[in-house]
Amino acid sequence: MTRTPDDLTAFTAAALRRLRASQPLVQCLTNAVVTNFTANALLAIGAAPAMVDIEGEAGPFAAVASGILVNLGTPHEEQRRAMLEAAEAAAVARTPWVLDPVAIGALPVRTALAGKLAGLRPTVVRGNASEIIALAGAGGGGRGVDSADSVEAALPAAASIAATTGAVVAVSGAVDIVTDGRRTARIANGDALLTRVTGGGCALGAVMAAFAAGHDDRWATTVAAVTVYTVAAELAVARATGPGSFAVAFLDALAAVDEADIARLARIS
Amino acid sequence: MTRTPDDLTAFTAAALRRLRASQPLVQCLTNAVVTNFTANALLAIGAAPAMVDIEGEAGPFAAVASGILVNLGTPHEEQRRAMLEAAEAAAVARTPWVLDPVAIGALPVRTALAGKLAGLRPTVVRGNASEIIALAGAGGGGRGVDSADSVEAALPAAASIAATTGAVVAVSGAVDIVTDGRRTARIANGDALLTRVTGGGCALGAVMAAFAAGHDDRWATTVAAVTVYTVAAELAVARATGPGSFAVAFLDALAAVDEADIARLARIS
Amino acid sequence: MTRTPDDLTAFTAAALRRLRASQPLVQCLTNAVVTNFTANALLAIGAAPAMVDIEGEAGPFAAVASGILVNLGTPHEEQRRAMLEAAEAAAVARTPWVLDPVAIGALPVRTALAGKLAGLRPTVVRGNASEIIALAGAGGGGRGVDSADSVEAALPAAASIAATTGAVVAVSGAVDIVTDGRRTARIANGDALLTRVTGGGCALGAVMAAFAAGHDDRWATTVAAVTVYTVAAELAVARATGPGSFAVAFLDALAAVDEADIARLARIS
Repeated sequence: MTRTPDDLTAFTAAALRRLRASQPLVQCLTNAVVTNFTANALLAIGAAPAMVDIEGEAGPFAAVASGILVNLGTPHEEQRRAMLEAAEAAAVARTPWVLDPVAIGALPVRTALAGKLAGLRPTVVRGNASEIIALAGAGGGGRGVDSADSVEAALPAAASIAATTGAVVAVSGAVDIVTDGRRTARIANGDALLTRVTGGGCALGAVMAAFAAGHDDRWATTVAAVTVYTVAAELAVARATGPGSFAVAFLDALAAVDEADIARLARIS
Repeated sequence: MTRTPDDLTAFTAAALRRLRASQPLVQCLTNAVVTNFTANALLAIGAAPAMVDIEGEAGPFAAVASGILVNLGTPHEEQRRAMLEAAEAAAVARTPWVLDPVAIGALPVRTALAGKLAGLRPTVVRGNASEIIALAGAGGGGRGVDSADSVEAALPAAASIAATTGAVVAVSGAVDIVTDGRRTARIANGDALLTRVTGGGCALGAVMAAFAAGHDDRWATTVAAVTVYTVAAELAVARATGPGSFAVAFLDALAAVDEADIARLARIS
Repeated sequence: MTRTPDDLTAFTAAALRRLRASQPLVQCLTNAVVTNFTANALLAIGAAPAMVDIEGEAGPFAAVASGILVNLGTPHEEQRRAMLEAAEAAAVARTPWVLDPVAIGALPVRTALAGKLAGLRPTVVRGNASEIIALAGAGGGGRGVDSADSVEAALPAAASIAATTGAVVAVSGAVDIVTDGRRTARIANGDALLTRVTGGGCALGAVMAAFAAGHDDRWATTVAAVTVYTVAAELAVARATGPGSFAVAFLDALAAVDEADIARLARIS
């Protein structure tokens, strides 16, 4: 369905209320750098994290989880097998799952894996512009986790991925874009300090999985996840004196952000 | 020996003093989410952490460590082999070790591993109610790391594990229970914020290993570990404005908590 | 070239300015305990971290990274292979790399690996006194990550490693030593709280790799890394009430430390 910016802001507030009432169980198969921050971000916002990423457990758990994150930041061999196991089980169980193809393009192992996973029909794909362009097969990749491309330049690639995989595609940057190929929202919240803390983008993927558990319109739940997350970042900046204190204040803000903050601060277009 | 609540409070204060004087070397084979927080909690309280969890090193190190934590949160294949190696070496060297069977019950790989490890006679078993019930073979498990059961409901299971393995069993919850099958203590300290930070329970397992190194009465050392840890949580709450700042204040409080705080705040029965 | 303490202080200030202007891409193959803190330390100081540590990617990435850290804190099997792959590719591509032989001596797997890696001609070797003595083949090792030896006692071992491998060798302690065998600097900055936070030394290794990317005199860049890092620690202490708040304040200080702080506080001799 079509939603106006005002509709989306109201949807976001309601989605946050639902998330806290239901405490969705979010399975994370994510990278070694950000597991702690990701789990704490999920706990702060009101979800329940479970880092189940070994073979023989990833699949069964994917069938009972509320949502799943598959993040390719440090895809060790055993975890790669567990990721495929989880994605396959998610398809059968219709568990929504988020694919974050971290740093693909130049790095061969994860680029091949991302291609396979994209074929298993993720619910949401999240990345920076270079990663989205690389996943669409149109670019040479960025500089590791940095993006060498602008968010708007990645819109055609995002639309292409949406068309091919059926996924909602979110491109992170100063202004975030969320598209399902037909509908495109832009969220102009957030702060540059979020890029000075490792896992700022990775934990957002987990939060997208938590929101995806609450409603069938995954384009709208992804907009809601980005909005709540980046509004919380703005609340945190006021209490930060650098990247260390920002990360701490951000977790506090994820726990504190409420519907009034969303109504007051959301900049969705 | 029998100990009154007043005896236990005095024992706790003395155990904390001993720990800081001896700086026990605690080997941790723990999950990827909480390694950093666990190491920092050990350093804060005055112990020396060593995350030695690879084959060929886990066993030799277990023979020289003061205490060991084996936590099943993310039991990757190589780590599973290292856990068995460490537990076997601990038995030979009589190094006290703590088993934390995270999220067992529904998840098959770790449930089988927990059964094997329990057979190697851990000194202490720590879990939430669902995990303890699952380890005793009497339940279907919780919801990942959450517990679907109450602490008091887990007391028969805890007593059963104590009888079978010889371990002291600690069940975490709003009121913590520590039992060796004959003696049962309840500790009514702590704060709900401790459940909003990932690793709140996992790091407690490491602290139990640190305290176990200091005295042969492991029921009393486990009561002491729970009491110091949860009193520190109460000290931290006063300085927290959310889960992020609580985690930071908690590490500060683990370093600052002293015998006077224990005497004033401990609620052991 | 010879540099006086005043030259080194000026070099340090200029090196910090260059680092922030160039944002070097630092590949980290490091231990599971400190990945998050290490990435955040690199981001805070102005570098770009990339934790690329799997086979098939570690080598290709080493050829394009600005600098590399190889830290042996938790050397799992797959990571060990990736470390050798990265070190070999670094040699071919002439990418500067730092070897941190964490806790070698008593632990057999990493001790053997450290020997192999030292043979691949690291640009910088960083460790505490016991680790440096063990790497030189002259000691029995410390107590895990603690050092049982004094920094000055490790100077002959450091000089021996410098002579054998061609590396600059840095020994951490209350006063840090940096030697290339011919020139030896001592840096008397820092604070004991840095030893109460896990990863205090490990993240310094990554910062050394970031500085090594900026200038060919790696003895001077290593002195600069140690000086900036330990001056930041002094700035952080004023805002800390324990190890938890120190770690947060330290990341803020790494982002805030400037050339005036260096000029005012550096104690290089």
